[in-house]
Amino acid sequence: MIAWKNFSELKAYSRLKALKGKVNLQEAMAGESGAKRVAEYAVPMGGHLTYHYAAKQVDDEVLDALQALADEAQLTDKYQALLDGEVINTGEKRLVLHQLTRGQQGKAVTADGVDKRAFYVGEQRKAAEFANKVHAGEIVNEKGETFTTAVQIGIGGSDLGPRAMYLALENWAKAEKTFKMEARFISNVDPDDAAAVLNGIDVARSLFVLVSKSGTTLETLTNESFVKDALRKQGLDPAKHMVAVTSETSPLAKSSDYLAAFFMDDYIGGRYSSTSCVGGVVLSLAFGPDVFARFLAGAAEEDALAKCPDVRKNPAMLDALIGVYERNAQGYPCTAVLPYSQALNRFPAHLQQLDMESNGKSVNRFGEPVDYVTGPVIFGEPGTNGQHSFYQLLHQGTDIVPMQFVGFRQNQLKTDVDIQGSTSQQKLCANLAAQIMAFACGKRDENPNKSFAGGRPSSVIIGDRVTPESLGALLAHFENKVMFQGFVWNLNSFDQEGVQLGKILAKRVLAHETDGALKAFSDLLCI
Amino acid sequence: MIAWKNFSELKAYSRLKALKGKVNLQEAMAGESGAKRVAEYAVPMGGHLTYHYAAKQVDDEVLDALQALADEAQLTDKYQALLDGEVINTGEKRLVLHQLTRGQQGKAVTADGVDKRAFYVGEQRKAAEFANKVHAGEIVNEKGETFTTAVQIGIGGSDLGPRAMYLALENWAKAEKTFKMEARFISNVDPDDAAAVLNGIDVARSLFVLVSKSGTTLETLTNESFVKDALRKQGLDPAKHMVAVTSETSPLAKSSDYLAAFFMDDYIGGRYSSTSCVGGVVLSLAFGPDVFARFLAGAAEEDALAKCPDVRKNPAMLDALIGVYERNAQGYPCTAVLPYSQALNRFPAHLQQLDMESNGKSVNRFGEPVDYVTGPVIFGEPGTNGQHSFYQLLHQGTDIVPMQFVGFRQNQLKTDVDIQGSTSQQKLCANLAAQIMAFACGKRDENPNKSFAGGRPSSVIIGDRVTPESLGALLAHFENKVMFQGFVWNLNSFDQEGVQLGKILAKRVLAHETDGALKAFSDLLCI
Repeated sequence: MIAWKNFSELKAYSRLKALKGKVNLQEAMAGESGAKRVAEYAVPMGGHLTYHYAAKQVDDEVLDALQALADEAQLTDKYQALLDGEVINTGEKRLVLHQLTRGQQGKAVTADGVDKRAFYVGEQRKAAEFANKVHAGEIVNEKGETFTTAVQIGIGGSDLGPRAMYLALENWAKAEKTFKMEARFISNVDPDDAAAVLNGIDVARSLFVLVSKSGTTLETLTNESFVKDALRKQGLDPAKHMVAVTSETSPLAKSSDYLAAFFMDDYIGGRYSSTSCVGGVVLSLAFGPDVFARFLAGAAEEDALAKCPDVRKNPAMLDALIGVYERNAQGYPCTAVLPYSQALNRFPAHLQQLDMESNGKSVNRFGEPVDYVTGPVIFGEPGTNGQHSFYQLLHQGTDIVPMQFVGFRQNQLKTDVDIQGSTSQQKLCANLAAQIMAFACGKRDENPNKSFAGGRPSSVIIGDRVTPESLGALLAHFENKVMFQGFVWNLNSFDQEGVQLGKILAKRVLAHETDGALKAFSDLLCI
Repeated sequence: MIAWKNFSELKAYSRLKALKGKVNLQEAMAGESGAKRVAEYAVPMGGHLTYHYAAKQVDDEVLDALQALADEAQLTDKYQALLDGEVINTGEKRLVLHQLTRGQQGKAVTADGVDKRAFYVGEQRKAAEFANKVHAGEIVNEKGETFTTAVQIGIGGSDLGPRAMYLALENWAKAEKTFKMEARFISNVDPDDAAAVLNGIDVARSLFVLVSKSGTTLETLTNESFVKDALRKQGLDPAKHMVAVTSETSPLAKSSDYLAAFFMDDYIGGRYSSTSCVGGVVLSLAFGPDVFARFLAGAAEEDALAKCPDVRKNPAMLDALIGVYERNAQGYPCTAVLPYSQALNRFPAHLQQLDMESNGKSVNRFGEPVDYVTGPVIFGEPGTNGQHSFYQLLHQGTDIVPMQFVGFRQNQLKTDVDIQGSTSQQKLCANLAAQIMAFACGKRDENPNKSFAGGRPSSVIIGDRVTPESLGALLAHFENKVMFQGFVWNLNSFDQEGVQLGKILAKRVLAHETDGALKAFSDLLCI
């Protein structure tokens, strides 16, 4: 029987708080004991990646406390309940089914009178068939020309995740000769965003993928109109250039304004939708359906692993719990995500949404205020770029910022250059290894300005190469990490009520129904 | 006489700490008192922007305490000393002269036997003449073709600032018909970065701008070699395609490997170098020297304002002091930078470096540990995108994150669409006004999940449009803000010793001179 309790009501809470400052990372990571930790503190994340936590501030006692927390909070039971189709998104009274887009890890789930796995697979197949026809030149523009560019129009989860995934695989697909079409993304309601994208493409040979679950997202509909205007100005018929990704009940679902419509539903939150048609249509167009299927397989592998109740064998749950220890026992307010891979350029922006929108909350799943801190601020940029930027603060600032590194042994394009006895790829990896150790152990110097205190914890996920499979596993790892943290904090990680007030006030501004400071600011901005 | 004292030694320190929680922002911003605050709490930032701080947690008592702090810490005296050429970067025993690249706000400064203002102006003139010759087709490739693309090769401050400025003005320049050449940027030592950029351009018609002050930055030299290989493979002579931006004493300065060399010096830190030739060459190539001159003029205007000792008339100093109040009295660890302008897409990444690398330090300018927190974590993405992402945490998370908004009344490309009675630009601005008020005042709801506590402070910088002048003012505002905060915290904001240890360890990894955990991680990464 699952009990949804606040974190502070658990025995494990005070046990964990009492372990504050337990591990001296500088000592733990020094000498041969450090090498031993690196060998021992590692968990495979399926066949493509490994999660290494040797440089985190944990030892067997902390890990045992995290295991006790996992058990007491029934983390894997809750995950299984989610997989089996229970109403986990209690606020909105919805199932949470994004894992079902990539595999069946629990019981068959029926909702709205259909088997949901079959529904998601069916939509994927529709997207695959559509993409294949576009690639084969069976679906073409008015002049009979093939489409060369796919342009996703969406915002938030309809933008950040799919965009990050596209960028992550773009060069891999080019290197592997599976690249089919360029993709571009229009998201911001700032009209310069859409205008700049349209200026940079051949509009006549572009296929637009309009993504809005509700079919009412104002930014997205505005950008759709912007694009339709542009198409008409070139004498093109928008209905021949546009598909919709939406829910079956949305106004977009059966409109003749679109070449085709692909469906998702209310059981998949925007930030969890990269493996649904929200990501599937644009990624299948860009790289082919087979690549998208491989991406899903990588995610499914991690989803399966996440069912393991042993924290030492469940990388997503372990990562989640170490994060909880850092947030609630150690008191760190932020986490930096630092991929040593240019392909993962925008992966931190996706994680920023995934994590902060899921767990940036002050009330528990029953609407009661919690008496502990919840989701941290997430930020990051790819290494080595970050090293020449904000790492100064990470090394020597007054606050400690836990870090989540990601690195790969090989690059994607396989072009490289040997300078001063090493390749660029080797330099990239050498910097990653060096940073982990510099943060963990620091270094005393007689000049205090050049001294490094160390004791700055990091984990690193290591793989061979950014491929569809490893990217899928990486995505699912973080989705599941965030889910487990939400379970510990007793939050509903699947709604986002915090975005509503701004929308209401913005409508009021546009209707000129304001007074006081809101009117004053609106006047300043000349609305 | 200037005294360099720790913040905690000042009388103003305890006075400010005692003002913790002084202002109830929800009440202050409600009704007509809110409108009054919006009218009163505003400072012009020269002719192009205004800094509004009505939605910050300040009142006249807090402002008086900030004025007392500014006076006691001698902030404008210290700024004047910097302008007059004193050795402000004490650790490295260097002058700090980036303001001199855009104007002469203090005494004539002589160093290395030359008048430094004349030196910077001279280099700008060289860059302008060079750019004019490229645009006029007087400097061409081996086949006599004009160059169409400029590619900056640099990392950290040689990348983030110039890239953010390029992106900020690219569409403006296209709209205003002053656009001359595309620019691209190669920064990461991940070889996929350079490879992808080279795959996307016509290499034969590209001019590469190699930027390294020391001429020894490993990432940059590695990317230079990568590019030279690519040029040679196409039968091109690298020396006909490359210019250097470096210091006069660097190995690059007088090399025949470059068409031309443009100089900066040790008195301009990387993150402060956008107005030197580090930004000047690529921006002059992209937009023409006149546009770059207008950008400098905007920055100079803000530099002049920053000399005013009255906090209520000095926007950079006021912004700095409010930040100090938020960090040291209110105890907030992060600041979000949120431009409502797609053009400022990468401006937050530049500010992240500027701020975190300058003030993310634990020792004062004499190398003694400080007993107060210093620079915050800085992160951000453009609005409205962020609203559909991490704003959930900003609205309803357990920690308060102060915000720095930026907004403009007009967009750059002047293309727009009217949907549901308003343009995209109006929607963008309406969202900005709405967010400020939603954060400040919140809203009670009987459903606690839909309740907003409010009390989340923000400032907003408002202008007409992102132009060279307003962008220059914006850049200088933040440079000066960071400088003033460094003065308050008694830091040396102009060195970055925190980046050194990682470099040393990375070299050791590449030389295979490691043991313990560093060797173990290196082995895992197959170096």
